[in-house]
Amino acid sequence: MNSSAGPVALTIERRDGLARAGLLATPHGVARTPFFMVVGTAASVKGMTPTQLREAGAQVVLSNTYHLALRPGEEAVRRHGGLAAFMGWHGPTLTDSGGYQIFSLAKKRCVSMEGVRFDNHIDGGDLFLTPERAVAIQEALGSDMMMCLDECPPARAERKEIVRSLEVTHHWAERARRAWRNTDSQALFGIAQGALFEDLRRESAQRIAELDFPGYAVGGVAVGEAVEDIRRIVAFTAPLLPDDRPRYLMGVGAPEDIINSVLAGVDMFDCVMPTRHARHCQAFTRRGPINLKNRRFADDPRPIDETCDCEACRSVSRAYLRHLSVLGEIMASVWITIHNVRFYLKLMEDIREAILAGAYSAFAKTRLEELASRAE
Amino acid sequence: MNSSAGPVALTIERRDGLARAGLLATPHGVARTPFFMVVGTAASVKGMTPTQLREAGAQVVLSNTYHLALRPGEEAVRRHGGLAAFMGWHGPTLTDSGGYQIFSLAKKRCVSMEGVRFDNHIDGGDLFLTPERAVAIQEALGSDMMMCLDECPPARAERKEIVRSLEVTHHWAERARRAWRNTDSQALFGIAQGALFEDLRRESAQRIAELDFPGYAVGGVAVGEAVEDIRRIVAFTAPLLPDDRPRYLMGVGAPEDIINSVLAGVDMFDCVMPTRHARHCQAFTRRGPINLKNRRFADDPRPIDETCDCEACRSVSRAYLRHLSVLGEIMASVWITIHNVRFYLKLMEDIREAILAGAYSAFAKTRLEELASRAE
Repeated sequence: MNSSAGPVALTIERRDGLARAGLLATPHGVARTPFFMVVGTAASVKGMTPTQLREAGAQVVLSNTYHLALRPGEEAVRRHGGLAAFMGWHGPTLTDSGGYQIFSLAKKRCVSMEGVRFDNHIDGGDLFLTPERAVAIQEALGSDMMMCLDECPPARAERKEIVRSLEVTHHWAERARRAWRNTDSQALFGIAQGALFEDLRRESAQRIAELDFPGYAVGGVAVGEAVEDIRRIVAFTAPLLPDDRPRYLMGVGAPEDIINSVLAGVDMFDCVMPTRHARHCQAFTRRGPINLKNRRFADDPRPIDETCDCEACRSVSRAYLRHLSVLGEIMASVWITIHNVRFYLKLMEDIREAILAGAYSAFAKTRLEELASRAE
Repeated sequence: MNSSAGPVALTIERRDGLARAGLLATPHGVARTPFFMVVGTAASVKGMTPTQLREAGAQVVLSNTYHLALRPGEEAVRRHGGLAAFMGWHGPTLTDSGGYQIFSLAKKRCVSMEGVRFDNHIDGGDLFLTPERAVAIQEALGSDMMMCLDECPPARAERKEIVRSLEVTHHWAERARRAWRNTDSQALFGIAQGALFEDLRRESAQRIAELDFPGYAVGGVAVGEAVEDIRRIVAFTAPLLPDDRPRYLMGVGAPEDIINSVLAGVDMFDCVMPTRHARHCQAFTRRGPINLKNRRFADDPRPIDETCDCEACRSVSRAYLRHLSVLGEIMASVWITIHNVRFYLKLMEDIREAILAGAYSAFAKTRLEELASRAE
């Protein structure tokens, strides 16, 4: 099997240290790597239409198996043409497996070797996810990239607990691999776990790679650990994943994390930060985040970020956005989401350009310094 | 003084019965009449960016003096280039005067011949509006069309009360007319009141017309009266307003009301219905409104309205919007707002086309029948 096998195929155009710029072919179109996936949990990116997403440069949208299985149900999505058509996006999509909810809904679930039962979710009733069921749901959703069900433990769990958890994750990965039927139209990604233990990370990466997936993810990052641990674990783990397959760092992260992770050879990212922070009036800038509710912006005629080309920065001032933020107007969220999403996507475009120019490490240094400077 | 005098000028292109199609020149551009103004209360149309508004065919945006005077304050808007620039719209705008809040905030205000004091508004403190102050605020906001402060009484008030109220409204109109300084760059509209009494409506229209405003409004409609009273009063009052000036029916209304009012010679409309109803998941269709939370849409693959060309109807199904509506996703509001606003603006385009073709009364009959049929 080589990198062109299966429904997604990575072509690396240029390497710059461990960083790579390439093209990822998917059934719904080609995405330029490295890329950031905008999160549309319930098949909807909160605050932006598909037209606005495309204009912002979005290439791949991520949705959540757990949420869609509960509402509207995966069969409803299938009947309406699959996730991409259902949400009017029509481009490449990736679905997670529900594994992250084992972490985020830790008090509402029970894990066994068989699977995970989620209890008492508002309105949704129980949901029992097995590796087979997670694949079946994602096959019904019709995403281009599916994820294996994994157990995502908190970063600070004890070693003994992580060892136990890895047995579950690896067992589930084997079962998911066997359950995968749409091998021509949907790619299944394996997920390496291992928390903060480098030997366990190495072992997990090897065992998952042996299963020969079209793509690989680093899971269990940004689940409570320190920033330096994120950096260390990603730098250690990403190069252990097969070089000819796309590498996806799940749920990460801040702009700084992305810049550092590309240095380690990561190709794909997703995070709720640009959309969720926008709903709390927090906007990203080249010189760090700002909160537009702050009184100091009440008379600030500048755009959020003078280097940004998004519709918000071309149209309205910080003073205007501060006005909407204080009132809790729906458009405060929408405008800041438009900006934040474009900020992330433009960062990825700049990253890619720097790699293609063979200048990534200098770029990374400059941008990290800039982000660390105090936003005005 | 003729119709080309002042900062707004109406050119009537075609008459069809009492209906008129024309062009209204304003300092921020020409608007084709009859037109519907999308409401952006706090200098923001809830759910749509200016780009989306322009794509939907919006020509004029309406904002509220009362709300903007409280937050962010009219001087802040002035400093940021005036209302149109502040909100990134850059097209024609109209501001109301705060008169409507005398009706909508009836328990929180006190009216005298001098003016109206609003008490205890959340966060905003007191606001004392006089006719002079209402003009001064609107001059600071820089809208193309300003409204005189008027007293908007409830439709079912007693005759004695309406007679008293008209004295206030007419006195205020004279004072506003005298206070108007930006006569080259901002038009001031007079407002005729009179509730359900035809003789009082006639008297008010005459007294306001004597003050020679660049435009005239029918106020005090859709403030609690029956649908047939709306129709009767508009049909009676609109033709009493000067024929060569734009006629504006304030705060009205449902598509049926608009169709009927154009028959009476009204040129301008505004209403919160398309935007507010959208936030309650109610969508307009050619065959009446539907509520997308309804279970019967859970598996409906059709767009909201198969005759509509909006981004929502081109992109997503009722089943999808029902899914978002049930979840309370922000995009349910946004998508339905995009549709409802386009629905209203397309209705106005169709109305105008019918008038230009000399076929308005047949058009009105057909559309009213269609709206009365049961939406599926």
